[in-house]
Amino acid sequence: MTDSISDAAREIGDRVETFVRKEIAPYEQDPRAGSHGPTEELVREMRDKAINADVMTPHIRKDGGHYSQVETAYILKKSGLSPLGPVACNTMAPDEGNMFLLGKAGSEEQKARFLAPLVSGEARSAFFMTEPSADGGAGSDPSMMQTEAKLDGNHWVINGKKTYITGADGAKVGIVMANSSDGACMFLVDLPDPAIKITRVLETIDSSMPGGHAEITIDNLRVPADQMLGQPGQGFRFAQVRLAPARLSHCMRWYGVAVRAQEIATEYACRREAFGKLLIDHEGVGFMLAENQIDLKQSELMIDWCAATLDRGEDGNVESSMTKVSVSEALFRVADRCVQVMGGMGVSGDTIVEQLFREIRAFRIYDGPTEVHKWSLAKKIKKKTLAAM
Amino acid sequence: MTDSISDAAREIGDRVETFVRKEIAPYEQDPRAGSHGPTEELVREMRDKAINADVMTPHIRKDGGHYSQVETAYILKKSGLSPLGPVACNTMAPDEGNMFLLGKAGSEEQKARFLAPLVSGEARSAFFMTEPSADGGAGSDPSMMQTEAKLDGNHWVINGKKTYITGADGAKVGIVMANSSDGACMFLVDLPDPAIKITRVLETIDSSMPGGHAEITIDNLRVPADQMLGQPGQGFRFAQVRLAPARLSHCMRWYGVAVRAQEIATEYACRREAFGKLLIDHEGVGFMLAENQIDLKQSELMIDWCAATLDRGEDGNVESSMTKVSVSEALFRVADRCVQVMGGMGVSGDTIVEQLFREIRAFRIYDGPTEVHKWSLAKKIKKKTLAAM
Amino acid sequence: MTDSISDAAREIGDRVETFVRKEIAPYEQDPRAGSHGPTEELVREMRDKAINADVMTPHIRKDGGHYSQVETAYILKKSGLSPLGPVACNTMAPDEGNMFLLGKAGSEEQKARFLAPLVSGEARSAFFMTEPSADGGAGSDPSMMQTEAKLDGNHWVINGKKTYITGADGAKVGIVMANSSDGACMFLVDLPDPAIKITRVLETIDSSMPGGHAEITIDNLRVPADQMLGQPGQGFRFAQVRLAPARLSHCMRWYGVAVRAQEIATEYACRREAFGKLLIDHEGVGFMLAENQIDLKQSELMIDWCAATLDRGEDGNVESSMTKVSVSEALFRVADRCVQVMGGMGVSGDTIVEQLFREIRAFRIYDGPTEVHKWSLAKKIKKKTLAAM
Amino acid sequence: MTDSISDAAREIGDRVETFVRKEIAPYEQDPRAGSHGPTEELVREMRDKAINADVMTPHIRKDGGHYSQVETAYILKKSGLSPLGPVACNTMAPDEGNMFLLGKAGSEEQKARFLAPLVSGEARSAFFMTEPSADGGAGSDPSMMQTEAKLDGNHWVINGKKTYITGADGAKVGIVMANSSDGACMFLVDLPDPAIKITRVLETIDSSMPGGHAEITIDNLRVPADQMLGQPGQGFRFAQVRLAPARLSHCMRWYGVAVRAQEIATEYACRREAFGKLLIDHEGVGFMLAENQIDLKQSELMIDWCAATLDRGEDGNVESSMTKVSVSEALFRVADRCVQVMGGMGVSGDTIVEQLFREIRAFRIYDGPTEVHKWSLAKKIKKKTLAAM
Repeated sequence: MTDSISDAAREIGDRVETFVRKEIAPYEQDPRAGSHGPTEELVREMRDKAINADVMTPHIRKDGGHYSQVETAYILKKSGLSPLGPVACNTMAPDEGNMFLLGKAGSEEQKARFLAPLVSGEARSAFFMTEPSADGGAGSDPSMMQTEAKLDGNHWVINGKKTYITGADGAKVGIVMANSSDGACMFLVDLPDPAIKITRVLETIDSSMPGGHAEITIDNLRVPADQMLGQPGQGFRFAQVRLAPARLSHCMRWYGVAVRAQEIATEYACRREAFGKLLIDHEGVGFMLAENQIDLKQSELMIDWCAATLDRGEDGNVESSMTKVSVSEALFRVADRCVQVMGGMGVSGDTIVEQLFREIRAFRIYDGPTEVHKWSLAKKIKKKTLAAM
Repeated sequence: MTDSISDAAREIGDRVETFVRKEIAPYEQDPRAGSHGPTEELVREMRDKAINADVMTPHIRKDGGHYSQVETAYILKKSGLSPLGPVACNTMAPDEGNMFLLGKAGSEEQKARFLAPLVSGEARSAFFMTEPSADGGAGSDPSMMQTEAKLDGNHWVINGKKTYITGADGAKVGIVMANSSDGACMFLVDLPDPAIKITRVLETIDSSMPGGHAEITIDNLRVPADQMLGQPGQGFRFAQVRLAPARLSHCMRWYGVAVRAQEIATEYACRREAFGKLLIDHEGVGFMLAENQIDLKQSELMIDWCAATLDRGEDGNVESSMTKVSVSEALFRVADRCVQVMGGMGVSGDTIVEQLFREIRAFRIYDGPTEVHKWSLAKKIKKKTLAAM
Repeated sequence: MTDSISDAAREIGDRVETFVRKEIAPYEQDPRAGSHGPTEELVREMRDKAINADVMTPHIRKDGGHYSQVETAYILKKSGLSPLGPVACNTMAPDEGNMFLLGKAGSEEQKARFLAPLVSGEARSAFFMTEPSADGGAGSDPSMMQTEAKLDGNHWVINGKKTYITGADGAKVGIVMANSSDGACMFLVDLPDPAIKITRVLETIDSSMPGGHAEITIDNLRVPADQMLGQPGQGFRFAQVRLAPARLSHCMRWYGVAVRAQEIATEYACRREAFGKLLIDHEGVGFMLAENQIDLKQSELMIDWCAATLDRGEDGNVESSMTKVSVSEALFRVADRCVQVMGGMGVSGDTIVEQLFREIRAFRIYDGPTEVHKWSLAKKIKKKTLAAM
Repeated sequence: MTDSISDAAREIGDRVETFVRKEIAPYEQDPRAGSHGPTEELVREMRDKAINADVMTPHIRKDGGHYSQVETAYILKKSGLSPLGPVACNTMAPDEGNMFLLGKAGSEEQKARFLAPLVSGEARSAFFMTEPSADGGAGSDPSMMQTEAKLDGNHWVINGKKTYITGADGAKVGIVMANSSDGACMFLVDLPDPAIKITRVLETIDSSMPGGHAEITIDNLRVPADQMLGQPGQGFRFAQVRLAPARLSHCMRWYGVAVRAQEIATEYACRREAFGKLLIDHEGVGFMLAENQIDLKQSELMIDWCAATLDRGEDGNVESSMTKVSVSEALFRVADRCVQVMGGMGVSGDTIVEQLFREIRAFRIYDGPTEVHKWSLAKKIKKKTLAAM
């Protein structure tokens, strides 16, 4: 497997690791890394360091090409070794997925205007898709989307409500999804825009995303027709293009931070004594660390397997569902055990283990709850089995 | 079982339920119910309402006597229907346990001075026992206690460090545990005291305890000899007296809030649709709610069983360990499933489910991590089995 | 709780325990206790001993009345301390449920003819309800029942296929369920009958039921009209009458044998050494035994809670579903851990732990798989919640 | 990963699959495939077919060389598609491991005499290592070995007891482990030998191994000195050589049969209806099948990862422990879910799912219980962490 990682990718991945461990991890206790994610000031400060260390947007080559998914996994896992790493290196969600999509589907003008400032790390972006449940909008089921786009001369006029829009607060680039009479469409917009109002930023259990997750009202947003991504009705197809890789890159980043939690918990267990011996010498603790080692390895193998599938040009829908479920559930078990191993220290903010536990709890829901993926996998199993019967 | 609950206890329990649901639950979204627990101002405001509704310290009768543990379970479960309920009604930790201990072990003077203002809800208290691991102090293993008390004339002089001291910030009464040449001792102190310095209040995953959890330095604290609880060397015996009931009352309170979470998640699942039907009509969701119903029932039965054991005058060490492990683990599963049922809403602060999930995560560690209880249970199983072989 | 057990019930329960441990357990290694359950010869031999020890049908009083469900739980748990205990004492399935149903719904003549020889332990019985899936018959879903009964003069003529008919091979009394034009009916029949052909006895994972589980063809079985239980169309009502208590008595018996497995595994762990200490001194082993102790206690409390519900005259449908799910799953965990604690010995027939593990695996399916009960619980949660919204 | 499988290996693996599905699976219902494994007659019959189909000992090339571990995984997984497949194709334990060891450590004479008839499928073999716990012998802890070998002229005289000796009954070749004054040794012996007495064949939960698992007394067994494998004291080293690959090949075979169980359960769920729809359309069932698909994929990835490690010449101790734990636990979950999906059918012998469930239960203990591997992993984590601190 590792053979398919080029020297260049390996070299930049290792540089990312050194950078995140040495220059970014110390910021974890910085008060600016708050509960709605790091402040814009802190983001800027960390990104300047990343540019300096030549690790900005490390998974995209200088010529604009992307490393393979297997190589991207190598790099993004390293960037995740701190919850602040992906923000610093510009490998985080939703930007990573947005850059991927723009690279695949954007026109040259669109790339120059919307993609370039993202790749350089100058701007952040948001992806306006999910809608509030109180109004019966689209959560896990995209067919329920209620936001509407109507053509008015050379402009589209968009109205609707969105929620859980990660990073909207502070973003400079937006991708907005809405239904038109031709089907779902995606629009590129400059942010902020007075027609896109942040009604509030949600309090959430996770806290690593700059800008947090926002609730949004879109009120007669006018978008010039040439800011549509592709053609009318291609919205769901583009959502699919973005879907599997974006889902997988979540796994990569969170894998990194789970590795870090395991390091912290293991060192703690090798230092702290109770009832006459080191914690790790208690099987009750040692077994948990061994289980973590297994869960981490399985997660890594699933990530690499799914990445290889995407690299072969397959859509990877089944594979990324399987990977998302297994990795998010496994990393949650890892985080939960790390908390437990560390006792009172584990539920305090004195190490990042507590934050990681919260982040990964959200991961079991973000990008499709475990149950939605199992439901979708079951449907595919049925289809395949009936076809063969 | 329910037969053993007197009408008086049932009546006050039901009054507590009405009070918590109607008057306290609305405060949950109050900004003063912050991440280090409710502010002193909010505590006062809620407690005035509790006095008004005649539900202050509801598990202690007007004559100072305590309701039985089975009755206390009935009352405290109701008080827990909001994370703010126990603070409002004065059934929360560590006060509930401290009042119990003072009632059992305090002299009349000590009760008048230290217990009375606690029972009236005028003052809060703290229990200074656990110590920082960084210095090798006592966490789950009390034999590692390093805080020392030396007799100097008619005073004891105490030095040491404590951590995870719940509610210390803002408390008026303290119970301090320290080693003397005669063994462990407990001391009653007025707070604040310049010799007891709060070095910081920890950031923790839970956020319902007023005053949060503090790190403390005790620097030449001088305590008059008559403020010792009982005799020198009785410290561990008193810790035992407090132990099982205090552990059990945690289960009661958290049970209440888990019931509330289940109510919220169930209503959500009966209102929200996805993929063409109500969430609850998806077996993936309905099964989780059914599992919760079972876990809640089992938790209730364990609590009542342990309470009945204590009411028979037994020490209940085994029973309270079994109950603490099973209830904390079961309620965590309940909370985790409620989060999952509610999807994005479940990891946001829009309902208390998200907070409950965090609170109960801590519960699996507070008052002895699951693993310490299993370890202790295994030792007792061994002893009993060898005796019978 | 224990107060509600009369001295008489307690006395006979304790006598059952002594009998099962001293006189029945030694038969466990008898080759006649084979893979399709004990042979008729062995059944007779054990039952003669039971009559001798005055423990035959111990949950039914000499006057024909039944002990309360809470008392029955006390007695049946004791009878289960060996997988052969229920057969020996006549507390086993399906006879226990059949006797219960006949006592509730039979006419005096029916009782004299069909119930009396069951209570005396002279005869065994079978309950013909479930049907083969290959033909789309009724498994967990009784509405799919295909067996038909047609009135022909003064007789009913019954045709159909049944499967998983426990104890049919060797039974003297049968209760046959079939659809008539008036709805489902139950018929009492003498066995064997040439019109009821045992096509084969299934090989199954469990092996404690005499007669095993049979596949049956009913071919023009003629039953006199007065052998119908109750009236035409009451079949499902009677199935309900039998349902909850029969389901609960499974829990009682299997609880007993899980207690026995825990005893065996614990003694093994207190005798056997590995890696320099007793197995039980390894936390990996001691924790499993502690978890078993908790699971057993929870199971006991659920059984007693459900029994008390039935004793209050409620139908107990929800309670028995909750109890069946939680007890069967908990006892399976107990059995699985006992196997694991005992290593190679645990998967061999040298102790009954291996058999118990297999028996309890089947218990998670018999009397409704876990999933069917969760499905039914979810529907009731929905109904109750919508009613309150 | 798949690139590293040669065309030759792929071709023979695919031939094995066709052979096992078409020619061997039908034997599963043959009465000669009994509870102590297939009879010698059935083994011979199936092996003649295997020779005919050119799939005898398919993981060893005609020139005596072994396929790589990654290739062996490809082949052995296919051979496991029936529990009788490995016996038929000669890829089963303990022969596969014994052949591997003899190939690595045997002299040319030893290979000609003891290995050749194994590779041709003419003879079966046994590995005499584990000892009865009743006498304090070596189970999971090889340091407790009590069997002794003493030099007497040009012969070694061996005395001791062994248990769980798989396939001893009917084997022609034995490898006996014993302690000498120079340390542990391995001896090659012809079987049967009057000094090696089978005291009984154990009843065990699994039933696929020909000859079952035997208890053995070794009473003054005289072995010529040139039948020692390697040199005196090399016994544990050879045990290590055999260990990781033999452990891994268990995972390969059992993976195959779990795939088969999943096929059977999935087809059942796509054919059988309950409560108005196909079983698979119930999320309670569909989710289980989706979880199986994930568990199977993770198992496959762990097997391939460990195989690649061994192919790089590493000892693979950590990797094979991690793989054995995760694969045996995952496949057990798969088997358990398949049983549950199939309801009453799942606990009957009508499909191989019931047998598979029992086989895999044993797998969690054979070759080191899960707990022993976790214990060993924890020790290695500690060592590595302390070295880096």
